[in-house]
Amino acid sequence: MTDQHRRRREALAERIAPDADAVLITRLVNVRYLTGLESSNAALLVGAGGEAVLCTDARYAGTARRVCPDLELVVERPTAETLTSRAGETGVRRLAFEAHAVTVEKHAALTALDGAPEFVPAGHRVEELRLVKDEDELALLREACAISDRAFAALLPGLAPGMTERQAAIALDRHMVDLGAQRPAFDTIVASGPNGAIPHHRPGDRVLARGDLVTFDFGALHGGYHADMTRTVALGEPAGWQRDLYDLVLRAQLAGIAAAAPGAETKAVDGAARKVIADAGHGEDFPHGLGHGVGLEIHEAPLMGYDKTGKLMDRVPITAEPGVYLAGRGGVRIEDTLVVRGSGPELLTETTKDLLVL
Amino acid sequence: MTDQHRRRREALAERIAPDADAVLITRLVNVRYLTGLESSNAALLVGAGGEAVLCTDARYAGTARRVCPDLELVVERPTAETLTSRAGETGVRRLAFEAHAVTVEKHAALTALDGAPEFVPAGHRVEELRLVKDEDELALLREACAISDRAFAALLPGLAPGMTERQAAIALDRHMVDLGAQRPAFDTIVASGPNGAIPHHRPGDRVLARGDLVTFDFGALHGGYHADMTRTVALGEPAGWQRDLYDLVLRAQLAGIAAAAPGAETKAVDGAARKVIADAGHGEDFPHGLGHGVGLEIHEAPLMGYDKTGKLMDRVPITAEPGVYLAGRGGVRIEDTLVVRGSGPELLTETTKDLLVL
Repeated sequence: MTDQHRRRREALAERIAPDADAVLITRLVNVRYLTGLESSNAALLVGAGGEAVLCTDARYAGTARRVCPDLELVVERPTAETLTSRAGETGVRRLAFEAHAVTVEKHAALTALDGAPEFVPAGHRVEELRLVKDEDELALLREACAISDRAFAALLPGLAPGMTERQAAIALDRHMVDLGAQRPAFDTIVASGPNGAIPHHRPGDRVLARGDLVTFDFGALHGGYHADMTRTVALGEPAGWQRDLYDLVLRAQLAGIAAAAPGAETKAVDGAARKVIADAGHGEDFPHGLGHGVGLEIHEAPLMGYDKTGKLMDRVPITAEPGVYLAGRGGVRIEDTLVVRGSGPELLTETTKDLLVL
Repeated sequence: MTDQHRRRREALAERIAPDADAVLITRLVNVRYLTGLESSNAALLVGAGGEAVLCTDARYAGTARRVCPDLELVVERPTAETLTSRAGETGVRRLAFEAHAVTVEKHAALTALDGAPEFVPAGHRVEELRLVKDEDELALLREACAISDRAFAALLPGLAPGMTERQAAIALDRHMVDLGAQRPAFDTIVASGPNGAIPHHRPGDRVLARGDLVTFDFGALHGGYHADMTRTVALGEPAGWQRDLYDLVLRAQLAGIAAAAPGAETKAVDGAARKVIADAGHGEDFPHGLGHGVGLEIHEAPLMGYDKTGKLMDRVPITAEPGVYLAGRGGVRIEDTLVVRGSGPELLTETTKDLLVL
C-alpha cells in the first residue's frame, strides 16, 4: 500500500498549507495511517509538498525500512524532538502539530528546543482524512467483521448453562484468533442475567443459567481494522419481558440503521433509534450514544449521540448499538458494524438478529 | 483494597500541598491506582486533605459504586471538564494537573471554562508514588509472573519445527489465559531464526526450523499487573556461535541483575550488563536499554538505559533483558522480572536460564 500512503500524505499536505510549512504527526495511529508503520515510538514530518521524514527508534528501524522503503528514515529514540529540530534546520518557520495528541509537557519541551519553529495547532486533519475509508480499508474491515461473525457461530454450539461469563469470553476470543483475527479488537464483554444491565460489564465468575439473557460485545482485529458487534441471546425459552425488550431494542436498531445515510446528521441517526426506545418508556434506560466510527481505532469519528454534531458521509463505517438496561434484571444490546453508502447501508455484520434461544 | 487506595490519595495530597489546593488526575492508569476503578473515561479530583471526587460516565457508574463506595461519585461524560468546574465552585484557586497527560487542546478547553482555577503542572507525582510497590501489588505481580512461567512450561512440549511463529504465539497466549491471565500483558513476540535479529519482531508466517534460535517475549496480565519475560530456545543442537551468543547474553543478564540493588544508579545497572556485551565486541548489537519498571503499565519508571538517570529503590520491580542481535543471522534475548530488595534481587521469573535445546 505504499502508493496509498503517499496519496494520504499528499492529501494531508494540501490541508496544511498555507497555515504552516510542514506538519509534525505524533499520534501513532496517524503515523500508521500515513506510512503503514505500526510502532510504539514514531513521528512523521510532512512538508508542504507531501515530502516526508519518518523517525522511529532502533527497535522498529528494520520494519520501517521494509514497510515504507520510499520514506526517508531517521533512527532516534526522541522522535518528536528529532523531527522538530530537523524542521527548524530545513527552514520550516511554522510547524503545524497535533494539539490533541501533544501533551502540555511535551509541547513545552519541543518549543524550547534550539531553533524550533513556531508551533501552530493543526486541528484533527489526519482524523478528518481517516473518516472516509478507501475500498482497501473497507475490505480489511469487512474481513474483520466476517471473522467476528464466524467466531460467534463457532461459539454458539458450545454455549450452555454452567459456563462462567469468563469461560465464554475466552472461548469467543479463541475462536476469533483461530479464524484469523490478529487479536480481539477490544476486551470482549459477556454479561449474563442481571449483569446484562451493566453496559460495559467485565466478564466474571457468574455462571450462565437457564432464564438468562446473555449479551456478547466483541470483535476481531484484522490488518489493523476493528470490528465491533453485539448479540444478546436467551438461555432457554425467554420470559415475556425478555422477548419484549429484545424486540424493542431490535426495532430501535433497525430505525437507526435506516436513518444512516450520507448527509444525515449524526444526532438525527441517534435520535431515530432513541425515539423508539423513549416512546416505549425506556428513554432513561439507554444511557449511551447509538454508535461510533470504527477503523484503525475501535472508537473514532463520527460519534453518534444525542449531543453530537456532524454529518454522515459515503464510505464511513459506523456501529449501531442501542441497548436497554434494567438494573437488577438484565439488558439487551444489539450491534452491527455497517458502512454508510449512497445506495443504502452496507451491513458488514451478518449474524442473524432473530432472538437466538439456546 | 479501599483502605489502600485512600492511603494512596492521602500520600498524593501531601505531595501536592502547598503548591496547589487540589490536583486533577486524568491519566486513567493513575485514576485506577488511586481508586481501583478501571475505566476508559474517568477523572479524579483530590483535595489538599486527601478528600476526593471521582467522575466517570454512565457506563462505568455501577462499577465505580461497587469498587470505590467510599468516594463521592459524579456521573458525567466530560470528566475533566466536570471536575474542573467542580474545583472552581468549591473554592480551589490553584489546581495541579498532569501536564504529561493533558493535551494542549484539552488544556486550552479546561482553562477556558467559566470559573476555572489556575492550572499548575503537578509533575509526575502519581508515577512517583507508583514506583515503589506495596506488598499487595507485588503479590499480584508475582502471580502474573508465575502464570507466565507456567504458560511457557506448558508451551514447550508442543513446540516443534513446522509450526509458524504465529501459531506458537497463539498457543502461548492461550496457555496464559488458560492458566489464569486476564489477557497477555502485551503482544507476544515470537522471533525465529533470522527474525531473532529484530528486537520487536511481530510473529508471522515463518515456519520454525531445526537450527533456529527462537525468542519468546511475553507475559501475563493479572489483576492489572504486567509480567514480562523472554526466553530464547534452540531447535535442535545449537551451532557454536549460537551457544556462545547465548552464554554471552546470559552473563550480561546476570551481571545486570547482580547490580540491581537499592541505591544503584539505573545507568550503572544498565552499564554492568552492557559492559559484558561490549567487552565481547557486540556493543553495537545491543541497541536498547537493559530494562524498565513494570506494574499497572508494561513500561513504567524506572527506565534503565545508558542515558537514563535515577536510582533504584527497595520494592521496585524491574525487568532485566539484554539482547544481542546479528542482522541476517539471529539473536538472543533473556529477560526476567525481578524486585529490587535490600536483601538482594527477588526473581519473580523462575523459568530456567539454561539454554533449552528442543
